[in-house]
Amino acid sequence: MIRLGIIGYGNIGRACERIAARDGRFRLVGIFTRRDPSALDSPFGTKFFRQSEIFSFSDDVDVALVCTGSANDVENLTPRLAERFNTVDSFDTHAKMKDYVAAVNEAALSGGKLCFVGIGWDPGLFSMARALFYAVLECASVQTFWGRGVSQGHSEAIRRIDGVLDARQYTVPIPEAVAAAKRGEADALSDRQKHRRECYVVAAEGADLNRIRQEIVQMPNYFAPYDTSVRFVSREQLEREHGGMPHAGQVIACGREGGDSLNFALSTTSNPDMTAGIMMAYARANAHLYAENCRGAYTICDIPVSALYDDGDKKSARDFV
Amino acid sequence: MIRLGIIGYGNIGRACERIAARDGRFRLVGIFTRRDPSALDSPFGTKFFRQSEIFSFSDDVDVALVCTGSANDVENLTPRLAERFNTVDSFDTHAKMKDYVAAVNEAALSGGKLCFVGIGWDPGLFSMARALFYAVLECASVQTFWGRGVSQGHSEAIRRIDGVLDARQYTVPIPEAVAAAKRGEADALSDRQKHRRECYVVAAEGADLNRIRQEIVQMPNYFAPYDTSVRFVSREQLEREHGGMPHAGQVIACGREGGDSLNFALSTTSNPDMTAGIMMAYARANAHLYAENCRGAYTICDIPVSALYDDGDKKSARDFV
Repeated sequence: MIRLGIIGYGNIGRACERIAARDGRFRLVGIFTRRDPSALDSPFGTKFFRQSEIFSFSDDVDVALVCTGSANDVENLTPRLAERFNTVDSFDTHAKMKDYVAAVNEAALSGGKLCFVGIGWDPGLFSMARALFYAVLECASVQTFWGRGVSQGHSEAIRRIDGVLDARQYTVPIPEAVAAAKRGEADALSDRQKHRRECYVVAAEGADLNRIRQEIVQMPNYFAPYDTSVRFVSREQLEREHGGMPHAGQVIACGREGGDSLNFALSTTSNPDMTAGIMMAYARANAHLYAENCRGAYTICDIPVSALYDDGDKKSARDFV
Repeated sequence: MIRLGIIGYGNIGRACERIAARDGRFRLVGIFTRRDPSALDSPFGTKFFRQSEIFSFSDDVDVALVCTGSANDVENLTPRLAERFNTVDSFDTHAKMKDYVAAVNEAALSGGKLCFVGIGWDPGLFSMARALFYAVLECASVQTFWGRGVSQGHSEAIRRIDGVLDARQYTVPIPEAVAAAKRGEADALSDRQKHRRECYVVAAEGADLNRIRQEIVQMPNYFAPYDTSVRFVSREQLEREHGGMPHAGQVIACGREGGDSLNFALSTTSNPDMTAGIMMAYARANAHLYAENCRGAYTICDIPVSALYDDGDKKSARDFV
């Protein structure tokens, strides 16, 4: 039994809790949150603690799942945790990844712990696909497409605009670009040629819709480099038609000589559930490799798939060879 | 520089030789063949030796690539090699895999060597996809489809029939079954419901075509469990229209709750080239992990993707996270 601590009780934390409750290989020690523990209630009877209390549980938790909301939180918290806990996180800021891995690695090595970073689907499964494809197809052209699906980061960026009550943003791959990637001809495509962005926005009564639209489409990095559509909808319509968190994506590799292609595609009706499933599988791998004396920060590429299985399982990785 | 020995000079051996010739990270020591070495000529000036001579090269070869034609040859040869060489093979008889791995493991451990078994696309990349998908989607329904592509084994089985001069067999997935797999509803489908078989046969003049057709479609294991079509063609037509060795396939996983799917698809105009590219990438991983004191028989699931890269490469696996 792997004794788990879950840090953060957002969508991913809740999904990890659900999996732990139905999977007999885990025991959930508690959920550590920045909210008031006494105000929280779990359908599974889980105990809640203040986030800072995690540090008194270092003897009771085999693996700490870092499920706090924002990448900033993860970036600050995990290196502190890593000195005293084995961790699994889904840190997803690609641009900061190398510094983050280095910081977690230093902490984990100083504390003799094993920390898995960037464990989700991108980064995560897609990272592994990209690295694998590039190697086996001899420096193939490798492209990633996201969507159609809801981007939390982009939705949140819209919500921060004055006069916006709520919003949902879909990232949508452009079919011509996907087709070009399959022919190995997408390397030179711009962001605008590869994806477009669809925004559904609930505005406050009397807000200047034109101003909001302009603030969205001109927002640097998030929207300016893309063709972006903005539709204003009622709160009810947003809930009804855009209440879910579906996502999808694919990694496409085409060999330099053109005749070979590899494609890894993912689709989910619940992005946080998918991420949680991946984190929970790798929590098991973490416990196995820690027992084999692996230490430091590992990305998903450093972890053999066979570590996802152990002797007590009904199946082993070799059953799939 | 990794010093390579290639055992066998069929399609895969030749493809490995081509990659070694253009990739500066390898030095090809020689090709070891059952044919007369003096009768062979290489476009790259490679030296040829009798297959049995490999055993006098144990100090000169870092990794031996086992590229002999049939699974029987690999099954007999690799355990003997494994006592004295690090090896990479693409042994592909799923039913014998566990015994084979055990035999290679015992030999490799006794000789202090590292041997990678079943390194191709199936077994190989598809094995890894199946094991990964099953773990991260919590015991998902996982299905594999092959084709449309040429099956060497089935083509060969037809060629053994009396009165057949040459033949090519295509394995073809059935679209309705692929669609069912994406919905997680393909677990109960029969072989016949998942694939059909298309045969193009060159018959000897005067041969009884009906008898040949019956021998094909009734052949146990190979064809009887499938809907099989047989077309007789001229030798010229076979060369012209069916001269290549294209193949394709996909692994489809659907989460138990139905909302999640993962799909890994491959397509190649040259099956042996694809397999050779994978074997060569893993030959590099073999050298890296051997240097890190890994010993015994490894399947692809035991090998982290990061081992496909080393410090001298332009990229590392972390560049893809």
